[in-house]
Amino acid sequence: MKILAEVCIIPIHGATSLRREIAMAHSILKETGCHVELHSYGTNIEGDFDVIMSAIKTIHQTLHANGTMRLHTSMKISSRIDKEQTLQDKVDAVNAVLKESK
Amino acid sequence: MKILAEVCIIPIHGATSLRREIAMAHSILKETGCHVELHSYGTNIEGDFDVIMSAIKTIHQTLHANGTMRLHTSMKISSRIDKEQTLQDKVDAVNAVLKESK
Amino acid sequence: MKILAEVCIIPIHGATSLRREIAMAHSILKETGCHVELHSYGTNIEGDFDVIMSAIKTIHQTLHANGTMRLHTSMKISSRIDKEQTLQDKVDAVNAVLKESK
Amino acid sequence: MKILAEVCIIPIHGATSLRREIAMAHSILKETGCHVELHSYGTNIEGDFDVIMSAIKTIHQTLHANGTMRLHTSMKISSRIDKEQTLQDKVDAVNAVLKESK
Repeated sequence: MKILAEVCIIPIHGATSLRREIAMAHSILKETGCHVELHSYGTNIEGDFDVIMSAIKTIHQTLHANGTMRLHTSMKISSRIDKEQTLQDKVDAVNAVLKESK
Repeated sequence: MKILAEVCIIPIHGATSLRREIAMAHSILKETGCHVELHSYGTNIEGDFDVIMSAIKTIHQTLHANGTMRLHTSMKISSRIDKEQTLQDKVDAVNAVLKESK
Repeated sequence: MKILAEVCIIPIHGATSLRREIAMAHSILKETGCHVELHSYGTNIEGDFDVIMSAIKTIHQTLHANGTMRLHTSMKISSRIDKEQTLQDKVDAVNAVLKESK
Repeated sequence: MKILAEVCIIPIHGATSLRREIAMAHSILKETGCHVELHSYGTNIEGDFDVIMSAIKTIHQTLHANGTMRLHTSMKISSRIDKEQTLQDKVDAVNAVLKESK
């Protein structure tokens, strides 16, 4: 099952700097071979449901193995059957409306 | 891997009433045998990562098979290695602090 | 503007126990006089948009004043104009479908 | 109070195409004068809490006035007092770690 998703992790480990863990999570998502986009509030990813969920599990296991005692992940997942849509298609669709309405 | 999670689905199918699809999703989560709690903004669930993710996949497939063209799911997932914690433990911990501070 | 909302805060302050801050946030929401429901993944609340957002701001300010260096809040907000709906109505509607389908 | 936020709206109005409403919401956020970034799962925004929340309210009111019967918005809000941080700083911090670890 093809999905579009957004993954945002919050490691709770006793420090306010989270960049190392977020980079680790982003790398694990990237290693899936899926198309990924890092933004200021997470990583967007487009690919197979099982592949992405397997990466999420690896993220939790890897971060715990590296000392993160507690990990909170928020995800958005979407699938549709009326048409194919990529992450880029979504942005393009909104930008097209924005351009028209100028 | 044991996790606590919250699952909130939003079917996008051409009607404003979503109760039938939300009930279907809740039933699928319940059929996992995991402990589930329905609330006004989703279903909280506690159990094995793979079991829960397999249920999420079934929710998307079942709702699409029943006419939902587009489905948006938001999830919160948490795991911790410092101690065991159930959904009820989380509420109890906060209620204990609230009681103390009265 | 009447809304239904869910508020989930994650204090990032150098400890894995978050109960004290979550209790503080829940109390601030409760002090609004709005109907609130604490669950394992946040507090659901029903009331006026401005009142709720003012409470969210107070939560951030109060927790920062009490030593939380960094605070992440996730919210769901919904409003509808086709009919009045309470938090309880949403749960009742889903439970009614679940009961029928037995 | 300065915050970083992510806003993702889901109009529930009887159609699967949401681009027009998402463009409308993005425009309202942009009109605040705050720095905004559109991505595939929402709009990231950086600015004053009150200004951003006022825009969220306007989004709900405007979309309802334009025929969206029901509207679900999910938001992430973060504030910190240990240092100043922009949306771009967050991405830069993660990219710096990713570069180092190559």
